[in-house]
Amino acid sequence: MIQFQCDYLEGCHPRVLQALVESNADQAAGYGEDPICEEARDIIRRLCHAPEAAVHFFVGGTQVNRTLIAATLRPHQGAVSCDTGHIAVHESGAIESSGHKVLTTPNDNGKLTAAAVDALCTAHWSEAAPDHMVQPGMVYISNPTENGTVYTREELLSLRAVCDKWKLPLYLDGARLASAMECPLCDYDYAFLAEVCDAFTFGGTKLGALFGEALVITNREMNRDFRYILKQNGGLLAKGRLLGLQFRELLKDGLYNEIGRRENEMALYIRRSLEEKGYAFLIDSPTNQQFPIFPDDLLETLKEKYSFGFWEKTDARHSCVRICTSWATRQEDVDALLADIPAAK
Amino acid sequence: MIQFQCDYLEGCHPRVLQALVESNADQAAGYGEDPICEEARDIIRRLCHAPEAAVHFFVGGTQVNRTLIAATLRPHQGAVSCDTGHIAVHESGAIESSGHKVLTTPNDNGKLTAAAVDALCTAHWSEAAPDHMVQPGMVYISNPTENGTVYTREELLSLRAVCDKWKLPLYLDGARLASAMECPLCDYDYAFLAEVCDAFTFGGTKLGALFGEALVITNREMNRDFRYILKQNGGLLAKGRLLGLQFRELLKDGLYNEIGRRENEMALYIRRSLEEKGYAFLIDSPTNQQFPIFPDDLLETLKEKYSFGFWEKTDARHSCVRICTSWATRQEDVDALLADIPAAK
Amino acid sequence: MIQFQCDYLEGCHPRVLQALVESNADQAAGYGEDPICEEARDIIRRLCHAPEAAVHFFVGGTQVNRTLIAATLRPHQGAVSCDTGHIAVHESGAIESSGHKVLTTPNDNGKLTAAAVDALCTAHWSEAAPDHMVQPGMVYISNPTENGTVYTREELLSLRAVCDKWKLPLYLDGARLASAMECPLCDYDYAFLAEVCDAFTFGGTKLGALFGEALVITNREMNRDFRYILKQNGGLLAKGRLLGLQFRELLKDGLYNEIGRRENEMALYIRRSLEEKGYAFLIDSPTNQQFPIFPDDLLETLKEKYSFGFWEKTDARHSCVRICTSWATRQEDVDALLADIPAAK
Amino acid sequence: MIQFQCDYLEGCHPRVLQALVESNADQAAGYGEDPICEEARDIIRRLCHAPEAAVHFFVGGTQVNRTLIAATLRPHQGAVSCDTGHIAVHESGAIESSGHKVLTTPNDNGKLTAAAVDALCTAHWSEAAPDHMVQPGMVYISNPTENGTVYTREELLSLRAVCDKWKLPLYLDGARLASAMECPLCDYDYAFLAEVCDAFTFGGTKLGALFGEALVITNREMNRDFRYILKQNGGLLAKGRLLGLQFRELLKDGLYNEIGRRENEMALYIRRSLEEKGYAFLIDSPTNQQFPIFPDDLLETLKEKYSFGFWEKTDARHSCVRICTSWATRQEDVDALLADIPAAK
Repeated sequence: MIQFQCDYLEGCHPRVLQALVESNADQAAGYGEDPICEEARDIIRRLCHAPEAAVHFFVGGTQVNRTLIAATLRPHQGAVSCDTGHIAVHESGAIESSGHKVLTTPNDNGKLTAAAVDALCTAHWSEAAPDHMVQPGMVYISNPTENGTVYTREELLSLRAVCDKWKLPLYLDGARLASAMECPLCDYDYAFLAEVCDAFTFGGTKLGALFGEALVITNREMNRDFRYILKQNGGLLAKGRLLGLQFRELLKDGLYNEIGRRENEMALYIRRSLEEKGYAFLIDSPTNQQFPIFPDDLLETLKEKYSFGFWEKTDARHSCVRICTSWATRQEDVDALLADIPAAK
Repeated sequence: MIQFQCDYLEGCHPRVLQALVESNADQAAGYGEDPICEEARDIIRRLCHAPEAAVHFFVGGTQVNRTLIAATLRPHQGAVSCDTGHIAVHESGAIESSGHKVLTTPNDNGKLTAAAVDALCTAHWSEAAPDHMVQPGMVYISNPTENGTVYTREELLSLRAVCDKWKLPLYLDGARLASAMECPLCDYDYAFLAEVCDAFTFGGTKLGALFGEALVITNREMNRDFRYILKQNGGLLAKGRLLGLQFRELLKDGLYNEIGRRENEMALYIRRSLEEKGYAFLIDSPTNQQFPIFPDDLLETLKEKYSFGFWEKTDARHSCVRICTSWATRQEDVDALLADIPAAK
Repeated sequence: MIQFQCDYLEGCHPRVLQALVESNADQAAGYGEDPICEEARDIIRRLCHAPEAAVHFFVGGTQVNRTLIAATLRPHQGAVSCDTGHIAVHESGAIESSGHKVLTTPNDNGKLTAAAVDALCTAHWSEAAPDHMVQPGMVYISNPTENGTVYTREELLSLRAVCDKWKLPLYLDGARLASAMECPLCDYDYAFLAEVCDAFTFGGTKLGALFGEALVITNREMNRDFRYILKQNGGLLAKGRLLGLQFRELLKDGLYNEIGRRENEMALYIRRSLEEKGYAFLIDSPTNQQFPIFPDDLLETLKEKYSFGFWEKTDARHSCVRICTSWATRQEDVDALLADIPAAK
Repeated sequence: MIQFQCDYLEGCHPRVLQALVESNADQAAGYGEDPICEEARDIIRRLCHAPEAAVHFFVGGTQVNRTLIAATLRPHQGAVSCDTGHIAVHESGAIESSGHKVLTTPNDNGKLTAAAVDALCTAHWSEAAPDHMVQPGMVYISNPTENGTVYTREELLSLRAVCDKWKLPLYLDGARLASAMECPLCDYDYAFLAEVCDAFTFGGTKLGALFGEALVITNREMNRDFRYILKQNGGLLAKGRLLGLQFRELLKDGLYNEIGRRENEMALYIRRSLEEKGYAFLIDSPTNQQFPIFPDDLLETLKEKYSFGFWEKTDARHSCVRICTSWATRQEDVDALLADIPAAK
């Protein structure tokens, strides 16, 4: 079985593995207070041109989201997200479980628009009794989005402007960040993200690490006493150096972006090939998630050798599936897949 | 610097590392639904003579405790713990943050006694208005305790009896479980724990794993919809097979207990040696945490080469420190330490 | 100023006031454990033909909703509501603050349909990984709805059937219950509600009481340890007999329904009169809330003497307002209002 | 049966009742935004010499405590209270249910001492890893305490100083405030409380109101967006004017203090009389709660005609009971009680 359903099916990039092996016997202080974590933090601060930024490491994405949101909001506030946002849909109510509503607006191709945030805030503050409703308290976006789409510089600046207007922190969930940064549309760098966002993550799990998300916080207020809340949410890893080590390896000389680039290349190769065979795509994604539409009987045949993520039925006899590439996706597996897919009728 | 302050300073046991390296390139389904996790679960069920038990893997201990307690209690219930219990002291309010009070009783050498639980429950239920107070809803113990002490079979049976009397589930936090199981006092096996507890953990982080706790739930009701709550608390690791793999390696042929035994041997060797030199111990611990009392000026000298965990001042010129041994503690480091400690005056 | 914006602007019905005055000096046990509360509970059980039902008194509606939902759901579950439901919109995140998502579906004229609940549950349970999403755990409806509309017997039976199918408790928020029961469309009685719902409320605040909601719970499991959770949510009134007294007075001989009937009569009189003058209504409500559409310049004139609730702009020059009648609405005030409204152009 | 077990057994003071009756038919805006509430707020601000203070009205004390604490603390913070504090014992975990630990210290005759707060904070901040523990975030006291004891000016100033030292807001729960203010020991006025505390309450329920607590907040930061959190916690009363009306009546010309004075007089009369008969008291209380120790066989006889609150067994044959006086306690009932109690043997 060759699996394409997601991008966390294999272990970590060989260079990351090598670093883990080499440092295994060393002693290092616990809970992220070791020199390796500090080194990784410095690398991240330099990449972001943000010498004052705080950097915290987490094992997983749901942990980051619930911890940062819990640390940022007061009890009556909610996090604004588009309706396809990960926190709105796929975290089993982690945000609500820490007391906060996710305030959703319709998505635009997987993205939250500045106009939607503005409309939601305008509506809230023009209520006769806004204090009977949840107050917008921060803005959540993911980049790439859950649909594989990527924000432009322009769009991020507009979101920043609307956040400034309503005094809302802007948080960007970068679970697949390198894939966004390396896609052709991307017209900004990490320093821009550090400037435009109050906080954002470098996702590791889907980009060459065994696990891990690095959270960068440039808004000093959001970072106040952050480690208490990290611990409270079960996010402080005892052997924290495992996180520092992986991010140091991924970010010290560009491996992270290289992995993103390679994921995109494989994904776009699949896309072009399928388009040439006459298949349509539900979503126009420039990153490592692709959403082709296949006849159901073809999917039935393919599932003996390949696995995909089911996305949705598009009509009575067709379905959209998600194909993900990862750091480990092999050309030969992709070619085998493409060979097994005939031209569309 | 040779560090003894805790037992999570090094990476993982070489055999665990080897298993991680060998399986690194394999594809496996995410979130613990892969065959390796299933294999590890089967090994655990066999060890426990509990073919029906549920087994869930977590990255860390605070996560397990907050998730299991959240899954078990209703909103008005609290978890009974002695006042030195990890959940009562060292989890930054993780339990309260999920809505529950930790109901504490005085500890007996780090242990919760059946008599204390019975007294607390009797007091609650004999209140004129018990519904104005938090209802005891489950019992939490750790074994070994935070003081390194270990429950006897007799003590566990008494706790079980009092739990049955008051209809409370009993949960045992085994962050250092193998160290308890391998200490001379221990007169029971895993099957006994599975029978006497409603849930308990095999701690991996402090016993040879990079990270990880395996939670065994034998009480079917506590396991209902458990994975939702695991996800909600940020505890579902994307590459869950990393957890299954480590526990499979540790438990398939006794490595886990061997590590516990070795930790204990080194700890007791340190103890005997220091006792021979005339040092007293604050706590009589049979496991891998030892609590010698040293003159402060000796500690001042030692800290140039060695690190310990500060425990408490015992008088104006002496302090108790915690010395931990781990799977990686080297005889030569221990001997160097002992050589640098003169006989007590 | 004559105020029509809501139905809680005046004190209580004279008979309720009289009862409060007469019993003022009596001593009665606190927290709802007095004989008057017990008498009121018995009256309610008889009205509902539900001798086994539990009855709890609350001061306000948000308190009831958050307490009952907190008592019913486990952490990973949400309450299903249509998007106009009070818990979804107007309780400042009270439900989320107790840890639960409100799972919304589009409303049908203010109502939640059985089809919408079924679709939502079907979607949840057919997910590949339902445990990554909030699980539907109960169903919330209000009757009359926030739009003044009323469920039919048929609709309630359909909701019951879909709740049975998915094993969900059904809770009906009756903040204005008598207004629903006394509207011409209503083809059921309290006993029917007690049978079809797991829990429902008799709202007092908007129907002749100073304050108060009586919660009837027929599902024994939902009532387990309920008073603890009531206390925890700040809902146990010290002088609880004030609640029992009001409900006893309202329900012992039909005053409650009489007030609902009178509210409806006044509301429908306003409606007929305005329709005769040529005004349209945004919502077809048979109860004490009416939603006429007026020209904005007329509203500008009227606001010197009358107040309404602003509902929404219907076009550039017209707005819908909410007019509420209460137990205290006077014929002369209504007639004054109608006299000041000219025929529509 | 003549009842002395608590001070919320009767309705309200006749003058309060009269005010409720007279205003019953008036229309007033909902949710505390009416002119009567505003008038009551002004009276309170004047009494406190605090023209900038915010004043919010609540129905009950648990509501105030959980709302204010939720509004004040961040997720990782706890409220410091002595172990007999109401929030620590008698609110069914309301504070924990909103996510916060109650950090307790041993009480000194029902009081929290500045020294205890200082010790607790010193211990926290001198931990090696304070971020693994709950951070002290505010200080809670009640005055009079749950034991009837009263803080002196000196003690309150010491608490203020220690709060300033550790940057903690100080909150005083005045459920029985007038009884404290009118006791002989009290050497301060409301203006002093407004200055020394960041927030405090005037309790109404136990001092002549049907129900109600008025919360005064002088710390601007604690008041930010307070009404949202009030609504979220189910604390916004629809007919809010009922609260304003009662406090206006109680506070406009000293009735509140007069009631406190009268409660104290009756309580101290009972005390002196019982002391003369030779009975001892468990607690030396100068306020409306008294704690005599009686032989159990005497209590057995008395319970046919009188009810008290059981406090605790003091030895095998004696018990301490709580006797409370209220605004409505009648001289004749007290005299009947005293006549039925023989001189102690």
